[in-house]
Amino acid sequence: MAEMNLQIRMAAHPVGFPKSSDFEIGESSIPDIGEGEMLLKTLYLSVDPYMRGRMNTRKSYAAGVQIGEIMIGRTVSEVIASNDSDFAVGDIVWSSTGWQAYGVAQAKGVRKIDQALAPVSTALGILGMPGMTAYFGLLSVGQPKEGETVVVSAAAGAVGSLVGQIAKVKGCRAVGIAGSDEKVNYIVDELGFDGAFNYKTATDYKAELQRLCPDGVDVYFENVGGTITDAVFTRLNMYGRISVCGQISQYNLTEPEMGPRIMGGFISKRLRMQGFLVGDFSDRHEEGLVEMAGWLKEGRLKYREDIVEGLVNAPEAFIGMLQGDNIGKRLVKVG
Amino acid sequence: MAEMNLQIRMAAHPVGFPKSSDFEIGESSIPDIGEGEMLLKTLYLSVDPYMRGRMNTRKSYAAGVQIGEIMIGRTVSEVIASNDSDFAVGDIVWSSTGWQAYGVAQAKGVRKIDQALAPVSTALGILGMPGMTAYFGLLSVGQPKEGETVVVSAAAGAVGSLVGQIAKVKGCRAVGIAGSDEKVNYIVDELGFDGAFNYKTATDYKAELQRLCPDGVDVYFENVGGTITDAVFTRLNMYGRISVCGQISQYNLTEPEMGPRIMGGFISKRLRMQGFLVGDFSDRHEEGLVEMAGWLKEGRLKYREDIVEGLVNAPEAFIGMLQGDNIGKRLVKVG
Repeated sequence: MAEMNLQIRMAAHPVGFPKSSDFEIGESSIPDIGEGEMLLKTLYLSVDPYMRGRMNTRKSYAAGVQIGEIMIGRTVSEVIASNDSDFAVGDIVWSSTGWQAYGVAQAKGVRKIDQALAPVSTALGILGMPGMTAYFGLLSVGQPKEGETVVVSAAAGAVGSLVGQIAKVKGCRAVGIAGSDEKVNYIVDELGFDGAFNYKTATDYKAELQRLCPDGVDVYFENVGGTITDAVFTRLNMYGRISVCGQISQYNLTEPEMGPRIMGGFISKRLRMQGFLVGDFSDRHEEGLVEMAGWLKEGRLKYREDIVEGLVNAPEAFIGMLQGDNIGKRLVKVG
Repeated sequence: MAEMNLQIRMAAHPVGFPKSSDFEIGESSIPDIGEGEMLLKTLYLSVDPYMRGRMNTRKSYAAGVQIGEIMIGRTVSEVIASNDSDFAVGDIVWSSTGWQAYGVAQAKGVRKIDQALAPVSTALGILGMPGMTAYFGLLSVGQPKEGETVVVSAAAGAVGSLVGQIAKVKGCRAVGIAGSDEKVNYIVDELGFDGAFNYKTATDYKAELQRLCPDGVDVYFENVGGTITDAVFTRLNMYGRISVCGQISQYNLTEPEMGPRIMGGFISKRLRMQGFLVGDFSDRHEEGLVEMAGWLKEGRLKYREDIVEGLVNAPEAFIGMLQGDNIGKRLVKVG
């Protein structure tokens, strides 16, 4: 083929918020495939907060991206050529071929997408990693009970918007914290949250939480960290649970932030806090997928996609997402 | 009776560390008992860190002591008179009659002590609240597995000294943090901890932990808070657990202390942190008691009592305990 493979590589480890110059656009030839491999053409690329951690020099829970390497990322792709008898040309698959127009994968890194279920892009959102993150992080880690109050931060994002809706499915009061009035209106009016506040305009988080959570907070689904989290802690009920999914307010700090020590409250309120990654539940992925797809079909879950066109715009799509300019799942439409 | 009832009352809410003038010694007549009540003569009074929280004006997990009220506390007493057919004069009982020479109790607040098991004072230590705190806090909250490393702070105290020994019973590596060389020697040489360090002379807690916990820390039994805890957090392993029992370094602060934000590590290491009170396990008390008594009988658990003579010395015994001048369980011998 004469066509080239467009790729976005990491040019520098970001200091603070990533900037355009931390990325570089490159090209390579479209690779040949070997035994058991397939060639995938990227249709959609997912950009997610966790990628910021992979760009650091310091060790995270997974290997970091090195300078000059292609940025990592989950993708929805079409099979263009296949040396694996389980996959045919034209299949639409979920893979992790990263920020490039074409990628090579083996069966173990690929999953066929059931196109009857929902649009294929949902394999990167509600029926993919963000959906399973919300599902297992809320239900298995947070363990909300009917009638309890669930608070979620980054509530209009890919994960948060689902956390509140799953809480509603389970008979809980769902309260969101988000960064614009538009987001607040979206999650309350369209998604059915019981309440929400805009942390960028609110002057007293505790008062907002008191207003929106008159019976206190039983489960906090933590996406952000920092002063928002400090305020939620003051409103936690006895036997409250904190499901720690993300810390987006902290990812771009150049110096670690100090905060109030929180352990005293763990004793007096018998709190339980647990961190998780969606991969911890990979053996239960099918269970989560079936249940989320069922709720989606029944109209009990809604989702929005925030799609940026063109792989060359992936860096801006990613940087903007870290700054909260998306509502719902941010995707890059590549192919 | 002509004898009077000596009582120690709270004279003032302490600011920072309690001082003698926060207590006052009083007398009252020895009360008569009504229907279903018994008169108890205090033999031993337990002084424990949790009492500091009860002296505050601010709300804790239990009602606070008011100015002029008798200080609360668990006791071992002898039944002097009884209007309850289940209790006879001469019985030795566990009760919560507080800092006084005589107290009145009903059956629901009293438990007969099996004198065949161990000296009766152990009902306030290894076979009482501190023992059950160590047992359930380590085994049910911390959930150590054979071969794992357990670190405990305030390791020569009533609870900490048992935590490390229970960890050894369960086949774990036990490492203690304590406040004097004498304490370090005691828990290593006498109690069989695998290692310990003196946080008052150590200059680099992380280096000490690295030396003593070459495979990292799987379970941290948290009694102290502050910079010791910060150091332990840096050494926690994947899927580490933090059992939050106490925060003695924080109880006497006049202003809340700031510290590093810890939630990021919860995600990357999938940590689980849970606070507890021994009362959460009251329905399993018998199970804990039987197992601890068995290990004691087998010589697998040792204990030391640090006994101060005379109820009038209870304030100093308590203040000194908060400053760590005890090794093992601090008790006041009253009767």
